[in-house]
Amino acid sequence: MEIKILKDILESNKNAANEVKALLKEKKIYMIDMMSSPGSGKTTLNDRIIGALKSRYRIAVIEGDIKTTKDSERLAKHNIPIFQIETDRFGGDCHLESSWVKKCLEQFDLDNLDLVIVENIGNLVCPAEFQLGDDERIVVLSVTEGEDKPAKYPLMFNTSDTMVLNKIDLLPHLDYDINELMDNLKKVNPNIPVIQVSARTGEGMDPLLKHISGNIDKKKRGA
Amino acid sequence: MEIKILKDILESNKNAANEVKALLKEKKIYMIDMMSSPGSGKTTLNDRIIGALKSRYRIAVIEGDIKTTKDSERLAKHNIPIFQIETDRFGGDCHLESSWVKKCLEQFDLDNLDLVIVENIGNLVCPAEFQLGDDERIVVLSVTEGEDKPAKYPLMFNTSDTMVLNKIDLLPHLDYDINELMDNLKKVNPNIPVIQVSARTGEGMDPLLKHISGNIDKKKRGA
Repeated sequence: MEIKILKDILESNKNAANEVKALLKEKKIYMIDMMSSPGSGKTTLNDRIIGALKSRYRIAVIEGDIKTTKDSERLAKHNIPIFQIETDRFGGDCHLESSWVKKCLEQFDLDNLDLVIVENIGNLVCPAEFQLGDDERIVVLSVTEGEDKPAKYPLMFNTSDTMVLNKIDLLPHLDYDINELMDNLKKVNPNIPVIQVSARTGEGMDPLLKHISGNIDKKKRGA
Repeated sequence: MEIKILKDILESNKNAANEVKALLKEKKIYMIDMMSSPGSGKTTLNDRIIGALKSRYRIAVIEGDIKTTKDSERLAKHNIPIFQIETDRFGGDCHLESSWVKKCLEQFDLDNLDLVIVENIGNLVCPAEFQLGDDERIVVLSVTEGEDKPAKYPLMFNTSDTMVLNKIDLLPHLDYDINELMDNLKKVNPNIPVIQVSARTGEGMDPLLKHISGNIDKKKRGA
């Protein structure tokens, strides 16, 4: 029974994801689904991305949280459209669903947007199961979380297109083995690109910004 | 429909949790449900707890993960009973349920145990909804995860009995405001005790060990 219901939910989510995908294609908007554990630094990373790219691109953000509008408030200084979803208002869901993203997109002026960043709920399990209709799934992992996460949460790392390894400014203070992380990662997703950054200090942001800009430009050209 | 199913699951979980509670009461075993984000340091913390207490108490561990037996392997050196649940084998659930804990307990020699530590799946959302029949819920939060987590995941912090603030050895390298964390915590759980530790260096472990030993002794006395 539980399994049948879950299948129904995933099926209906997939249909709405396809609608989102078609809408984004029509409007030539690039959309990123950004996922991670709680506290991996997604909002700090988005703060950097938006700060660096907002003069060149028109950006909007969809923030997902169980509760609070704290992340939206942190990004408010950029004066871009932000829509906050608080799942606590309707059952406390542990992930975002594509139908909600679609409703958020309908609030934005889609003819004047180049990039939408969806900051998913901090959770390495459930968001991986729900396609949002995005162009790219970025999983953010911070070095303080250990080397074993790709092995322990294979669906998340296997379905992501890009991995951002965050908080590398803390490496000198940790016993962290990047080779062990890479071994674990390659076992579940052999070809995933990994970009190492410190969202806090700004180190390593250039390759990530180039990666994102390149993808936005490509979508604009209808590629 | 989805809500009704969820209610049924939670109801059946509650019934099994009551059976676990009765069993633990009869056998005078203290059980801890340890929860956190992925990578907050639960296994390192358990390594310390077991190492310090195993000469005085008979300890068993139930390890919950989506996939891998890595955590069990890390604790194997202690030569204590460990049961690893990999939810990936039956649907990839994002939390442990009380009926599974009951089945694990049935594998242990319950007449020769004082403490069971359940290391739940790394997730600040779903495990909070599922009572396991334990005596104490300990939520582990690491300082690298930011100050806002109690506000963003209120059910987790509101239903926990004790908070362990881990990785305090990294405080000199972070912009971390403990007062802000405490303000956020007190809003959702005003009386929760907070024990600050570094599981990595061992700093602050004594008060935590005293807290756990005291609770085991109390249960032994049938209090």
